[in-house]
Amino acid sequence: MQPKALALAVSGAAAGLMLVSGAAQAQETFEWKMVTSWPKNFPGVGQGPERLAELVEQMSDGRLSIEVFGAGQLVPGFEVFDAVSDGTAELGHSASYYWKGKAPAAQFFAAVPFGMNAQEMNAWLHYGGGLELWNELYDDFGVDVMAAGASGVQMGGWFNEEIESVDDLDGLKMRMPGLGGEVMSRMGVAIVNMPGGEIFTSLQSGAIDATEWIGPYNDLAFGLHQAADYYYYPGWHEPTVMFEAIVNEEAMASLPDDLQAILRTAIRDVNQDVLDEYTARNNDALETLVNEHDVELRRLPDDVLAQAQAHSEDVVAELAESSEMAHKIHDSYRAFQEKVVNYHAISEQAYYNARNPEGDTTSAE
Amino acid sequence: MQPKALALAVSGAAAGLMLVSGAAQAQETFEWKMVTSWPKNFPGVGQGPERLAELVEQMSDGRLSIEVFGAGQLVPGFEVFDAVSDGTAELGHSASYYWKGKAPAAQFFAAVPFGMNAQEMNAWLHYGGGLELWNELYDDFGVDVMAAGASGVQMGGWFNEEIESVDDLDGLKMRMPGLGGEVMSRMGVAIVNMPGGEIFTSLQSGAIDATEWIGPYNDLAFGLHQAADYYYYPGWHEPTVMFEAIVNEEAMASLPDDLQAILRTAIRDVNQDVLDEYTARNNDALETLVNEHDVELRRLPDDVLAQAQAHSEDVVAELAESSEMAHKIHDSYRAFQEKVVNYHAISEQAYYNARNPEGDTTSAE
Repeated sequence: MQPKALALAVSGAAAGLMLVSGAAQAQETFEWKMVTSWPKNFPGVGQGPERLAELVEQMSDGRLSIEVFGAGQLVPGFEVFDAVSDGTAELGHSASYYWKGKAPAAQFFAAVPFGMNAQEMNAWLHYGGGLELWNELYDDFGVDVMAAGASGVQMGGWFNEEIESVDDLDGLKMRMPGLGGEVMSRMGVAIVNMPGGEIFTSLQSGAIDATEWIGPYNDLAFGLHQAADYYYYPGWHEPTVMFEAIVNEEAMASLPDDLQAILRTAIRDVNQDVLDEYTARNNDALETLVNEHDVELRRLPDDVLAQAQAHSEDVVAELAESSEMAHKIHDSYRAFQEKVVNYHAISEQAYYNARNPEGDTTSAE
Repeated sequence: MQPKALALAVSGAAAGLMLVSGAAQAQETFEWKMVTSWPKNFPGVGQGPERLAELVEQMSDGRLSIEVFGAGQLVPGFEVFDAVSDGTAELGHSASYYWKGKAPAAQFFAAVPFGMNAQEMNAWLHYGGGLELWNELYDDFGVDVMAAGASGVQMGGWFNEEIESVDDLDGLKMRMPGLGGEVMSRMGVAIVNMPGGEIFTSLQSGAIDATEWIGPYNDLAFGLHQAADYYYYPGWHEPTVMFEAIVNEEAMASLPDDLQAILRTAIRDVNQDVLDEYTARNNDALETLVNEHDVELRRLPDDVLAQAQAHSEDVVAELAESSEMAHKIHDSYRAFQEKVVNYHAISEQAYYNARNPEGDTTSAE
């Protein structure tokens, strides 16, 4: 070999190493932690974070790995927001009403009594300015947010006795958190707060007379039919719960553009997938509850629903007064709701009623 | 330099080149064509393919580029399926009822009169076995399929005269394709088929008395309020249209796993995004139609809806007899529908009625 050939070989090697190093940089990997407010692998909502991690792993070919922690595994379920805000975890899956202590307006993005259902919330968030407001609200905490799942319309709750009118609510001890609980308290209910783990025994022992939880799928798994006979609908207080994926802003910015897009799109996938799972699984669970466990399914009486709606307007209007930002979010939310209620009156609502004019026949006597 | 050092340098160069070549292979790029059944950039459904291409471009960092063609730009709108099946295009965006000539059962995946709405279809497809059946149906054609958008409940149609009972339908000339048209013809309507481009002038000239189209957003853009006075709801014949993304199976298999995951997740994103856009835009369009264009909004009379529902059951049952596969899909569809109607009676339907007991007030006199 001539010196010239040798020089070429050496410079070829150097060039090769440079390219390899370039490729290695493009292949930089990230290992993220995702904290959640649910027990690991909780049915329904707890599947969302697992699916999110799996999709991101596949799409990024392993460049972004996400380890999912159940509530209490890395931080308690109610500290998910703080953990993402301070960078303890890069990512979180939760529901925004848990952060009302930090920002009361956060409740608009989780569940509003007599507010918008899942389809309506998604339209407002993605085509009505809602998501921008949500991010504006969380911006002070260094957190990005996206919608990441919905429960659909929930159930009104489990009751130990029959409710025939609003008078029957007077003095009833019920576990119902948030805005719905505030509405109920204005109708004479004594609201009791307790962690999820205490609900079953409290209901069974009579320490409480009633509780709301989620819907047939989760309620059946939780065994609530063993502690109360009457299962009331509809869940006026939670026309859906929207779940959230929150991302530490600095961590997000550290990702190359393609991984940011991968993360956002995976979250959007999960946003629909969780609702799909609830819609499908709630069907089967309802049948099991009614046919196998003889649960008494009841519609809340008209006067309860009418009074709850009136009080809900007051409670939500008061929330709007809590800050300038709450006011701004409230105005956007309500303007969109007014229009979508009118539109859904002639589309989704009219269709449901045309297809099934008799409504609930499951509990017909 | 000693011979040994020289050998190392040379082998280093070879190793470097190998790694570079490995990196280059991982960076293989794909340029795909996507044919659609909509005019390029059509409002609503036509935005889906554009968003899909953009998301895939971002997530793949340019490794998979998708060029979107409107109807007629590469192939006519009704030849999208053939084009994807024979590999003329790798990807298509359309609606499965267009392929009823090839496989009548395809109609179950687009719109079933008095069938499932968007939320219910998504639950059946993703958690009730529907998507597997859809892929089984398309497998003979070498095509993979995923849900890729929904319209939500459509409108019942534009009519030149008021419909007060089923008698008023007798002899009416109406443009309504598919299963809905078959139902209408059993109620005395003379069904006329014509391409979208001829609808407006036919309605204006009186060549037809009525037409269905989509919903307020598209109908307003189409100017149908200038050709007919009465706008009827609900769209019992199309409780949603589900749109589809179809992929040539060989093209799909040629993609590395990460790009396959990217494509699938982008489609799932678009599946929700199109519905979100329709839900949001239909609100505004409805207001414009009623308040600015004095459109007369009317609910279809009870007897029309009841008879349409009865005939729909017959028409759908006949479709189920068209093949073994149609039978299998029908059974899965109807079993899921029965459950979800019961569940939504106490959740979504009960909630709509509790929130807005008066129903449509837009057209109240």
